[in-house]
Amino acid sequence: MLLKNKLDKVKNFLNNDNVLTKLEERYCYAKDALNLDVDFKTPDLVVFVETVEDVQKVLKFANQHKIPVVARGAGTNMVGACVCTKGGIVLNFSKMNKILEINPINMTARVQPGVILGDLKSEVEKLNLFYPPDPSNYRVSTVGGSIAQSSGGAMSFKYGTTKDYVLSLKVVTAEGKLLQIGANTSKDASGYHLAQLMVGSEGTLAIVVEATLKLIPKPEKKQLVVAYFNEVVDAMKAVNNIFQYHIFPASIDFMDNNAIATVEDFLHCGLDSSAKCLLLIEVDGLENSISEQIERIKAVFNSVNVKDMFFPESVVEAELFLRARRSSYAAATRLAPDVLSDDIIVPREHLVEMIESCNEIAEKYNLKICLVGHVGDGNIHPQFVLNLEKEEDFCNYHDARNEIYSKLKILGGTVSAEHGIGLEKKAYLKNSVDVGVLDYMRLIKKVFDPNNILNPDKIF
Amino acid sequence: MLLKNKLDKVKNFLNNDNVLTKLEERYCYAKDALNLDVDFKTPDLVVFVETVEDVQKVLKFANQHKIPVVARGAGTNMVGACVCTKGGIVLNFSKMNKILEINPINMTARVQPGVILGDLKSEVEKLNLFYPPDPSNYRVSTVGGSIAQSSGGAMSFKYGTTKDYVLSLKVVTAEGKLLQIGANTSKDASGYHLAQLMVGSEGTLAIVVEATLKLIPKPEKKQLVVAYFNEVVDAMKAVNNIFQYHIFPASIDFMDNNAIATVEDFLHCGLDSSAKCLLLIEVDGLENSISEQIERIKAVFNSVNVKDMFFPESVVEAELFLRARRSSYAAATRLAPDVLSDDIIVPREHLVEMIESCNEIAEKYNLKICLVGHVGDGNIHPQFVLNLEKEEDFCNYHDARNEIYSKLKILGGTVSAEHGIGLEKKAYLKNSVDVGVLDYMRLIKKVFDPNNILNPDKIF
Repeated sequence: MLLKNKLDKVKNFLNNDNVLTKLEERYCYAKDALNLDVDFKTPDLVVFVETVEDVQKVLKFANQHKIPVVARGAGTNMVGACVCTKGGIVLNFSKMNKILEINPINMTARVQPGVILGDLKSEVEKLNLFYPPDPSNYRVSTVGGSIAQSSGGAMSFKYGTTKDYVLSLKVVTAEGKLLQIGANTSKDASGYHLAQLMVGSEGTLAIVVEATLKLIPKPEKKQLVVAYFNEVVDAMKAVNNIFQYHIFPASIDFMDNNAIATVEDFLHCGLDSSAKCLLLIEVDGLENSISEQIERIKAVFNSVNVKDMFFPESVVEAELFLRARRSSYAAATRLAPDVLSDDIIVPREHLVEMIESCNEIAEKYNLKICLVGHVGDGNIHPQFVLNLEKEEDFCNYHDARNEIYSKLKILGGTVSAEHGIGLEKKAYLKNSVDVGVLDYMRLIKKVFDPNNILNPDKIF
Repeated sequence: MLLKNKLDKVKNFLNNDNVLTKLEERYCYAKDALNLDVDFKTPDLVVFVETVEDVQKVLKFANQHKIPVVARGAGTNMVGACVCTKGGIVLNFSKMNKILEINPINMTARVQPGVILGDLKSEVEKLNLFYPPDPSNYRVSTVGGSIAQSSGGAMSFKYGTTKDYVLSLKVVTAEGKLLQIGANTSKDASGYHLAQLMVGSEGTLAIVVEATLKLIPKPEKKQLVVAYFNEVVDAMKAVNNIFQYHIFPASIDFMDNNAIATVEDFLHCGLDSSAKCLLLIEVDGLENSISEQIERIKAVFNSVNVKDMFFPESVVEAELFLRARRSSYAAATRLAPDVLSDDIIVPREHLVEMIESCNEIAEKYNLKICLVGHVGDGNIHPQFVLNLEKEEDFCNYHDARNEIYSKLKILGGTVSAEHGIGLEKKAYLKNSVDVGVLDYMRLIKKVFDPNNILNPDKIF
């Protein structure tokens, strides 16, 4: 039977309105937020699932006919994690977007995978609760996507990443079986931690159809510290020193001078483009603890040659700076046709060296690069600004990237901190992961998905 | 070849002093802290490993000859997780007890598995850093054991459990290969989270020979709240209400009236035995935030009929109460020949009902029970006080336990929050985990250990 004829059968067991077959409709789901030509193919069918049973039916069918299935949330991942490589079926979760329960006593939220992260965050905050994971696209990206990609964000520094907040998952297996993995309790030592194995597995092991997430009490107050430095090394000294004074900021974000200038030229928000770099530090806690935290940070920063620092008094003013940081990618797109954002991480003691190397390598290959990141974590997002249609830029980018990853390996870093591997980084995964460990990952994949229908060709 | 002859060969490749062969020596390693007769067998050989290579040599040999290998730290687990069921080799890690590095900039500790948790905790605190996991035996138990059993402790409530602090592991596989899994960075989205899969796997997938652990800034100050209540329901109302006031205690521990009376009779420390229950709440943070936290807790507790509360002014006085809580097991052993401590957890909204059920079931079966636990997590440790040599007690205990687990299942709880499954709870694991999920766990076990030599018969 031809694939097309097989796929027509999907309409027999799903609501017709939920099945897209026309090329112009399917083409909208051919790519994700990765701005690089990878080996993708337009899906043969796009299905909007509405219920767990829909997902089960599609998977049973796909497994029987060995048709690839790729789950998709908002498609905002930057590594080609939800594109099709062999065609097949895209499972679109945008209709499974209900917050099923927020339980303030258990301090848990039970949600469908299509829930927008920002919606979840604001709903729980109404109850004085807090869901910390905050990838910079959280206003549009989904819970399911953040589980698939093991998302972090600025607040990972203090609060950890998605894997630290997933208590249990309902998943549909490749054969269409519904399983509950993990427990709806705050701790669990009843067998292997399969829920944590699922987080970051990019839809290659099973398809998440419901998640029970841990919530914590909402911090009463936040305060932003804006600090400019003339040298990156001073900024990192400042960061490294504050912990000695019992300060545990929620986030420690960074912009280098290229990023500052690029964003200032875009937003005209009054950033100091003459500085070598900018730190945006958010402290949080009880209202009466904030001023003491600020005093200690002031003292530390003054002792390491801070160029200038200030403390936005209103939420609106603070948001201006946070928006500046989040806008670095958008601002960079004004400079050249293409921006490629990476996601590297090293142990923090090597971060200054890694930043210097990124700049040296970019200069060597005549490429413009803006550096932003979550430097508390040692996590940098180098943003290459270039024209991929120019062969020179294209080749230089690949060479520069290889050099950055070689340096990364020497410094004990990894090629993905919070974006995932997808299709785009799989060639580089061996930079971070022992071949012997990759073998075990492949064997685990085989356990869950013997016919290799779940998001094939991703990760390894 | 006879097993004995085979095992004699181990002496060829290890330091002779590190190999125990005499029955009276081996017998010391036949049991762990589980106080129940399970199907254990004295090991045929006990090996003190000193290097990673020692572990590799033993595993290669054992795998070739299909001899069971059981890793052992301090043997303090309470579920028979490190006893032998078929004899074989016990790998004793007490000589691999070095803290290899504490890196204050990376905020990581790199340790051998035999390091005592309490030693690690106090060493990192000297550098103003903090390693939160604190099972109540942390002064004697090892890092390797806490990784194997997915240990929690009182501070899990705010700070999470061991799995949240394991960044990377060096493990030796069943075939004797050394692998590094996870990354030495604060975040990692490079492939499956195999390090989290290892945590809680009780040495059934691979043997941990080194761990890189995440540290956080040490809280500046702690303050204990001691609060007595006339009703458990009031105590839990008090707990549930404080989060609305942005209070996030480090720990919320509980003793019921049986536990209070038993400990008071043992320690004579001035506990109020007339109270129905006692809450021990530790708040932490910057010094100047403590009084405000205490004021808010006072207000909440006064609004829910607290019987009495006070706030120990010195560390010494606070330690008296914390010691009382930690002594509940020891105190209970004075009442009868045997104490069996369990480790159940439910979503917090069901905790009062679970506590009431435990008491009703104990009464029905004419058993004395003391209840202590980490009630912020919904985690209770029922301590049955009985004489296992009396057939009546023995049968009643098993019947009572079955009823408690049935109730637990109805309330959405699990049979182990932080102790693990081991040999003792494996018959009950299906109370908490879907059969389909257990099947996947078994398949993963097979991937890592096809000859079933690594801690066989544990978990499932």
